[in-house]
Amino acid sequence: VLYAIGLYPGFTALDAIGPYQVLTQVPGTDVVVCAERTGRLDDDNGLLHLDVEQTFDEVTAADVTLVPGGFITRRLARDGDAIVDWLARSHETTTWTTSVCTGALLLGAAGLLRDVDATTHWLAYDDLASYGARPTEERVVRRDRIWTAAGVSAGIDLGLALVAEEHGPAVAQAVQLGLEYDPQPPFDSGSPAKADPDVADLVRTVNRERTEALDR
Amino acid sequence: VLYAIGLYPGFTALDAIGPYQVLTQVPGTDVVVCAERTGRLDDDNGLLHLDVEQTFDEVTAADVTLVPGGFITRRLARDGDAIVDWLARSHETTTWTTSVCTGALLLGAAGLLRDVDATTHWLAYDDLASYGARPTEERVVRRDRIWTAAGVSAGIDLGLALVAEEHGPAVAQAVQLGLEYDPQPPFDSGSPAKADPDVADLVRTVNRERTEALDR
Repeated sequence: VLYAIGLYPGFTALDAIGPYQVLTQVPGTDVVVCAERTGRLDDDNGLLHLDVEQTFDEVTAADVTLVPGGFITRRLARDGDAIVDWLARSHETTTWTTSVCTGALLLGAAGLLRDVDATTHWLAYDDLASYGARPTEERVVRRDRIWTAAGVSAGIDLGLALVAEEHGPAVAQAVQLGLEYDPQPPFDSGSPAKADPDVADLVRTVNRERTEALDR
Repeated sequence: VLYAIGLYPGFTALDAIGPYQVLTQVPGTDVVVCAERTGRLDDDNGLLHLDVEQTFDEVTAADVTLVPGGFITRRLARDGDAIVDWLARSHETTTWTTSVCTGALLLGAAGLLRDVDATTHWLAYDDLASYGARPTEERVVRRDRIWTAAGVSAGIDLGLALVAEEHGPAVAQAVQLGLEYDPQPPFDSGSPAKADPDVADLVRTVNRERTEALDR
């Protein structure tokens, strides 16, 4: 199985690295990290710099594609970008086309979510709907060949679901144990339904500011 | 608050990126990623390449240090390495010195864990004890100025605990909600106590092979 994680400048690191870590634990799988260009690629904080070795043009036979989210996805989805073209092109031959967080907006821009149940970061449901998707409040949503995961950390759960599908539940359980994925968040505020409304307002404000800053 | 994440070739990506993503969500915090040398640095899979901009010598005033684990930590802890020296040196002035997974062995090698309760990946308790620590089966163990987290994914929980301590529980909850950290693993096999014994044996075998391969 060839898993291809497609990146772009401004991606959110954990969106990509969560599933990357899960998928690379499976002995014998191939995982490639690719982008429009080789060389340096920055995350959304500008603090983490990857050195990418493969271009989209070199990765044409992925069985599974995965795209992370980032504050910049709204703009890339609206204006078009090489990542959108690669997702659309790859989807013609993938077994599964998948996204984490606002990576779903890029699948939407690629025309893959019309009348499809899908999820994304809880703050991006309206953006998702604008591509014809039906926003669905679940951690991982699987419909036909498209799997979408909720915000950022949900990529870990998506990765485990993919491993269970492709390699069986015992392998997925071994990966979970190897990563000691026995989550114990110190608070129970991981979804808008559970968090304090003031906390949710704070997140809305910060998110809006970071997204709008990219449109200036 | 200056958070410094210290890396070395062969680190496990999620160990570092989990807490990185949590800490960088807090507006106004400084997070630096550093290593012995600037330039390209590979993870334990050899598939992810970072471009590191700061050296240990340049990061001398961190309030919080964090070191990830990796299969190679047993060797680095035994033979000595620049990361061990940096952790020891930094600890003289940090508020908190922290580790994820087998990063704890590097704290041990730095002489910071003698007679200290600490945790690490569940497969490395004996290694941890060899540095005088008391292995403690908890997700995050905090004793005096040393915080240690369990395997790989536990770095996310460590990050949230640090944010709660430094910036208050409301900020930590906002970060959790921003990352939609509402974990829903598809299986309940994230600790050896919960996993099927055959699954645990599989993880033991793979882990031993990967660790021994580095000693050849």
